Amino acid sequence: MDLFNHDNYGNISQHKHYTTLATQNMGFPLLILVATIATAVAFPTNNLVMPHGRLADSAACLSWRWAVETNNIKDFSNKVPEECADYVLSYMLGSQFRRDSKLVCDVAYEYAKGVNLTRDGKDVWIFDVDDTILSCLPYFLEQGSWDLNVQTTYGTWTRKGEAQAIPETLDLYKKVMELGFKIVFITGMHEKDSESRIKNLQEAGFTEWDKLMFKGDNELAYAEEFKSNRRRELVEAGYRIWGNIGDQWSDLIGTFVGDRIFKMPNPMYYVP
Amino acid sequence: MDLFNHDNYGNISQHKHYTTLATQNMGFPLLILVATIATAVAFPTNNLVMPHGRLADSAACLSWRWAVETNNIKDFSNKVPEECADYVLSYMLGSQFRRDSKLVCDVAYEYAKGVNLTRDGKDVWIFDVDDTILSCLPYFLEQGSWDLNVQTTYGTWTRKGEAQAIPETLDLYKKVMELGFKIVFITGMHEKDSESRIKNLQEAGFTEWDKLMFKGDNELAYAEEFKSNRRRELVEAGYRIWGNIGDQWSDLIGTFVGDRIFKMPNPMYYVP
Repeated sequence: MDLFNHDNYGNISQHKHYTTLATQNMGFPLLILVATIATAVAFPTNNLVMPHGRLADSAACLSWRWAVETNNIKDFSNKVPEECADYVLSYMLGSQFRRDSKLVCDVAYEYAKGVNLTRDGKDVWIFDVDDTILSCLPYFLEQGSWDLNVQTTYGTWTRKGEAQAIPETLDLYKKVMELGFKIVFITGMHEKDSESRIKNLQEAGFTEWDKLMFKGDNELAYAEEFKSNRRRELVEAGYRIWGNIGDQWSDLIGTFVGDRIFKMPNPMYYVP
Repeated sequence: MDLFNHDNYGNISQHKHYTTLATQNMGFPLLILVATIATAVAFPTNNLVMPHGRLADSAACLSWRWAVETNNIKDFSNKVPEECADYVLSYMLGSQFRRDSKLVCDVAYEYAKGVNLTRDGKDVWIFDVDDTILSCLPYFLEQGSWDLNVQTTYGTWTRKGEAQAIPETLDLYKKVMELGFKIVFITGMHEKDSESRIKNLQEAGFTEWDKLMFKGDNELAYAEEFKSNRRRELVEAGYRIWGNIGDQWSDLIGTFVGDRIFKMPNPMYYVP
């Protein structure tokens, strides 16, 4: 499945499973309905996209998404509210996720163009990996729920190395490299899985980087601490961190966060 | 005008100027239309709510609001995009702003209930004032644009001391006081205007506090620095900052931010 084979925001014209969405400028409830039916056909065992008996209250779910994205609601992993399951699916598969991703990447690029680079190889831009540059949405679609089972199915899925590039951050990656930034990827994946991660990055179009930093196989720290530690290593090695983009606030808070942080949209799960 | 004389989210039943909104469960475009017409009648010279010649692209403005609330888009003060002016008005006057405010206050109260208070008079909850507990929306409605003219019309308006309580934070204020937190207000208003501010707070229902901290009359620091300094004074005096709620990220970042921060919605302006 090619999730992101479309770049017309609001018009999923080349999406293999959702071509019926392409020809109409339709409202939100219809989008949910069509996405639900189409996905139920494509994934007959998919609980995630089966109707839940009552329609999502989109105003309540819009509030919920706002509260998650502003980091007011924390630690909801494994529990996207059941009444917002369809709403989140519609958000992720529809145009709004792409719009939001494009807007933050546009803002990031505007910032990047204004940075006065020293060009000594020490000016870096940090990218988180999962759901910042590689999309884990297919995992949830395959699984048929928003449960993030890190120790079991999710780990297995990510180790397959089949995550797809998010087009907006792939574009930002290329453009900040062109400007002269060095690329640093900091991923929560463990070092023992580096081979599949490298293969996945390369196949998704992320072919060059200055550093690819993993979590140590025995490192127990939460993301905020572990990522702060990796950034400290960079700063102590003389790197200047300018932009830092991630889908989780734990990518972006802590210490040595960089000159400017950029939050990618992700209402699917929370990583502390 | 009583902006917030309604607490049924989605049903502005007692709003003086928008009673026509009350009786129908209507869609977003119709809400914009009715609000536009009703407000244009109520404020005939109001440029803000006059039609702008083209309909707002609500998906694009939803993205814009998301990017503002996540602090991806900064420093847009005095320039809510013209194409989103109606969208922001609809958001603020409709139910979504109230829903978002209620959700963050509910989350904050859940957190507050879990804090193990020492009860030595040193456990504090910090509230920002403008557009956290007192709404400045009437200023924008009177002015007829989203321009925030801090040095002129906005200063004059706030010194009148007629801002209204935001019901959700008034409720949170009462409830955290009941739990035993001491209340600290940190406002960007200058000390020389303390009299009108105190009168406004009291008339709006905020009748008790432990500290009300102003910006010094000659203090030039931006909000992030000035508020960090006030919080440092609290911590150095032995206070423990638990919750800290504000509508601007500059209320919530910097140093000594507190154990947990809460972001109130505000797509109207940006304070660095």
